[in-house]
Amino acid sequence: MADTGSNGGAAERVWTAALVIIGDEILSGRTQDANLAYLARWLNIQGIRLREARVVPDEMAAIGEAVTACLAAHDYVFTTGGIGPTHDDITVDAVAAALGLPVVMHPGAEAALRAHYGERITEARLRMARVPEGADLIPNPETGAPGIRIGRLFILAGVPKITQGMLRGLDGKLAGGRPVLSAAVGAWTAESRVADLLANVQKGFDSVQIGSYPFWRDGRTGANFVLRSVDPHALRQAVEQLMGALRADGVEPVEGEI
Amino acid sequence: MADTGSNGGAAERVWTAALVIIGDEILSGRTQDANLAYLARWLNIQGIRLREARVVPDEMAAIGEAVTACLAAHDYVFTTGGIGPTHDDITVDAVAAALGLPVVMHPGAEAALRAHYGERITEARLRMARVPEGADLIPNPETGAPGIRIGRLFILAGVPKITQGMLRGLDGKLAGGRPVLSAAVGAWTAESRVADLLANVQKGFDSVQIGSYPFWRDGRTGANFVLRSVDPHALRQAVEQLMGALRADGVEPVEGEI
Repeated sequence: MADTGSNGGAAERVWTAALVIIGDEILSGRTQDANLAYLARWLNIQGIRLREARVVPDEMAAIGEAVTACLAAHDYVFTTGGIGPTHDDITVDAVAAALGLPVVMHPGAEAALRAHYGERITEARLRMARVPEGADLIPNPETGAPGIRIGRLFILAGVPKITQGMLRGLDGKLAGGRPVLSAAVGAWTAESRVADLLANVQKGFDSVQIGSYPFWRDGRTGANFVLRSVDPHALRQAVEQLMGALRADGVEPVEGEI
Repeated sequence: MADTGSNGGAAERVWTAALVIIGDEILSGRTQDANLAYLARWLNIQGIRLREARVVPDEMAAIGEAVTACLAAHDYVFTTGGIGPTHDDITVDAVAAALGLPVVMHPGAEAALRAHYGERITEARLRMARVPEGADLIPNPETGAPGIRIGRLFILAGVPKITQGMLRGLDGKLAGGRPVLSAAVGAWTAESRVADLLANVQKGFDSVQIGSYPFWRDGRTGANFVLRSVDPHALRQAVEQLMGALRADGVEPVEGEI
């Protein structure tokens, strides 16, 4: 299910997650997804790594295939989008079909919606109480309709403010490992000029991943080098080794991104 | 390979594409992807629909699996990221391994890099001339290193300005069908209040997809309904029918998003 990572020789369980973003509006370019980056950072605090994301259209088969594939490969799967009251909100049906579960009314969700809407309750609004059988609710502090948990699958809203409210309710409730720590080194240099140096530093640290991100600003070429590790000691060593190597090569680094 | 869509009874070839976004920086939440929405809109102008996107880490197997799966399901596949000069740029190697092709130096790319860098050429910089055997180059008007085309697979840079420059060079060169047209209707109403009405309008138009996107602004509840079709006549009819149905229900719609 999950990968195992090595850290200073001791095998360490790495908890992984995938995100399935559901929505024609993302794939048409109308809407810019804002949930991936937020979920990635939230997961890291829980000690879980986002290792994959997929964007799929509002179609039963596409949603079901993505959820099934991600469940097979990761410890946790999150979906965003498609849980509202309208005809294009088909996430619950698609997930239930993919998992071979019937769709039922959740009594707790129905009660919450009836309390929220009072006399204005309608069949369409009650659609938001439909869940795959056996599911639990994820409270929604923003609006009436709850999120849905089925074991290690979490069905969240697509509107970022609501998604984030649902995640707050899951804070500290998921098993995870050590969070990934990150540090950055910035320099006004072309990454291609220091590529060998970077590769050499990387070779010395199995437990640190070094990413190189070039940029062009005000006519100047720069790069940020981002270092990531669960091991604070190795991370510190790698930062210092990289900064020393850059200085020895005539490049003046700064700690942090520029 | 591609889906066929129906439009007024006549079967019509629908050209589809997938995007594979490569990069630990996206999955860690450090960097917000900006290529998906741009590519989606660019593809639509070419008459091609973006039907799937995946975000994968800087790992050979993950990149190879995503590219292979997307090639099997879509007419065109685009990748962004991982084609620079540093150790974490492994897209070419991952794609070549997945396709069973050797990696070779492309003489044209090598010449372009040698011309660009002059005496400053290095082994690391020449890494950017490595391509899967048989590949063509995609010109890069922004910086030296070209993109790569292998049949219906397009390997593009990750930095949006460079990605967009490469796409401009592909304008009008890909076979496609009719672009999807879109129109929007906005209203200050809860989508749950008009869900049945929306579903009824949707039922009357097989060739139009209607999406409902709620929002909350200044303490008020609103929704935008986005209609998409390749058929301008059906699209117009659906917009007018939806606006009429909303008015009949006591909701004052506006054309366009609010």
